[in-house]
Amino acid sequence: MENHFEIVEIKEQVLADNDKAAEENRRMLSENGTVLLNLMGSPGAGKTSTVLEIVKRLGRKYRIGVMEADADGDTDAKTVAETGTKVIQIHTGGLCHMDADMTRRGLQALGIRDLDLVILENVGNLVCPAEFEVGADLRVMILSVPEGDDKPLKYPLMFQISDCLLISKTDTKAVFDFDEASASARALKLNPGLSVFPVSARTGEGYEAFCRFLDERLQAARKGGSAT
Amino acid sequence: MENHFEIVEIKEQVLADNDKAAEENRRMLSENGTVLLNLMGSPGAGKTSTVLEIVKRLGRKYRIGVMEADADGDTDAKTVAETGTKVIQIHTGGLCHMDADMTRRGLQALGIRDLDLVILENVGNLVCPAEFEVGADLRVMILSVPEGDDKPLKYPLMFQISDCLLISKTDTKAVFDFDEASASARALKLNPGLSVFPVSARTGEGYEAFCRFLDERLQAARKGGSAT
Repeated sequence: MENHFEIVEIKEQVLADNDKAAEENRRMLSENGTVLLNLMGSPGAGKTSTVLEIVKRLGRKYRIGVMEADADGDTDAKTVAETGTKVIQIHTGGLCHMDADMTRRGLQALGIRDLDLVILENVGNLVCPAEFEVGADLRVMILSVPEGDDKPLKYPLMFQISDCLLISKTDTKAVFDFDEASASARALKLNPGLSVFPVSARTGEGYEAFCRFLDERLQAARKGGSAT
Repeated sequence: MENHFEIVEIKEQVLADNDKAAEENRRMLSENGTVLLNLMGSPGAGKTSTVLEIVKRLGRKYRIGVMEADADGDTDAKTVAETGTKVIQIHTGGLCHMDADMTRRGLQALGIRDLDLVILENVGNLVCPAEFEVGADLRVMILSVPEGDDKPLKYPLMFQISDCLLISKTDTKAVFDFDEASASARALKLNPGLSVFPVSARTGEGYEAFCRFLDERLQAARKGGSAT
């Protein structure tokens, strides 16, 4: 390689202000006994399919609300609304992530009083959402098989800040040169506490185990503790 | 749907400053007779594979340089360097896109004096790179089949600002519910001037046509005109 250089921007103040707002969200949610799940991943990784799986498997036990954040469009919110779930669409005005302030406005628009669990489907993006705390109790990221097993090397922060990694579209592993063991090992090297679940929305594989994990966290939160 | 709301942030000044810097880059490149190609797409869409195809097909006719921009890591730059191509790795310090100023610093580090074509492989992201002009003559975006044919509806700006759309991984169409005609129609509705090329790095399909298109633009630029 001929050359190599780094560009580091000073974003400390923006992130500090955001952290403060996230802490406020966390307090508001905790007082209401509501768990917030921040669901992140690239465009087309399977975020909406995962929302639908959670609703299908835990929707009778818990009162669930969904916030669909997109740069534009409302197809995902419509899809979720068809299940009868309480949902709002948030347009970020072209912004590539949700921050804590936008999340608070979303929670107010959704109304959390009667909800046990709020799922925020973040903007499809493997970079920026990792930098902005929204006050979530659980950070769940998705890496889809077609994206490649090298992604932990290129987008480390998302793997570092997540509590849970779903490796999605596992039914397509035969088509892609995807080494699941390498992907997991790379992710766990960045974050040894990460819970990893291979899943497929097409076959349903893995979602039972993931939803059991989620159920345990929700039960812990109900007993007055934090979900984390 | 229960609710729907919009968040619009004032980013006008940042974008105006960036546009000015992009114009400077364009002038510098034009004076040197160098064409800058801004290559954009989600993580794992096939950007590096596309760089390799361009180098393979046009590397004897044109002097090509490559700038690999990533939040972290240097795997792509190493892959490109193996072909003997002049390449630098740019780390964006966690930032999710390249702006005009970072691009200028990259061009200076790479050294453009002896180059006909510089390919900037932007950070894997379907949102932010669309908002930041870098002074490119050609904006090429990639949408991969596994991401889904609905992406023009959710990420319209990227489709609007691009000159060329590569629909990649077409060899996996049978595995995914991807309607190529719908994807093209949605993209062309947003941007009727878009040149669309279905491609597969695995079979090589489509890259000949795309590189012919690129060759024509480079020839036009050599004759003293702009590549656009």
